[in-house]
Amino acid sequence: MSKSIFYHAGCPVCLSAEEEILTLIGKQGLEIVHLGESSNRIEEAEKAGVKSVPALLTPSGNVLHINYGASLADVKG
Amino acid sequence: MSKSIFYHAGCPVCLSAEEEILTLIGKQGLEIVHLGESSNRIEEAEKAGVKSVPALLTPSGNVLHINYGASLADVKG
Repeated sequence: MSKSIFYHAGCPVCLSAEEEILTLIGKQGLEIVHLGESSNRIEEAEKAGVKSVPALLTPSGNVLHINYGASLADVKG
Repeated sequence: MSKSIFYHAGCPVCLSAEEEILTLIGKQGLEIVHLGESSNRIEEAEKAGVKSVPALLTPSGNVLHINYGASLADVKG
């Protein structure tokens, strides 16, 4: 895994963080996953250790929870 | 301001986040400030909107609170 994955759920906090992360890391190193639209990715995010969104899963497998938009439970609905 | 500033306080959560951020952004784009050692920078961090550490102040002036190590109040002691 060489890309980072940015998980979000379309919330305002998520979108603001997404813009910053895109600027800092660059598009080519980043996969962006909207868990509200791609709910089939929720399980994968959960297994990686994502507790809330927005969150960045780094290439080394660590999760950086960035600010706080919503819990993963909220995203599951 | 073209660099990001990573504020931390030496906590384990901070150091782990620092390593990830350094890998993602690269040393040349990053200033690292240890608020426990450089307490004269606390006021500046507070004014920028930092509420807890570790936190990343981006070149656009937004604060990304990354995971949670300690509140700024704790850092002030």
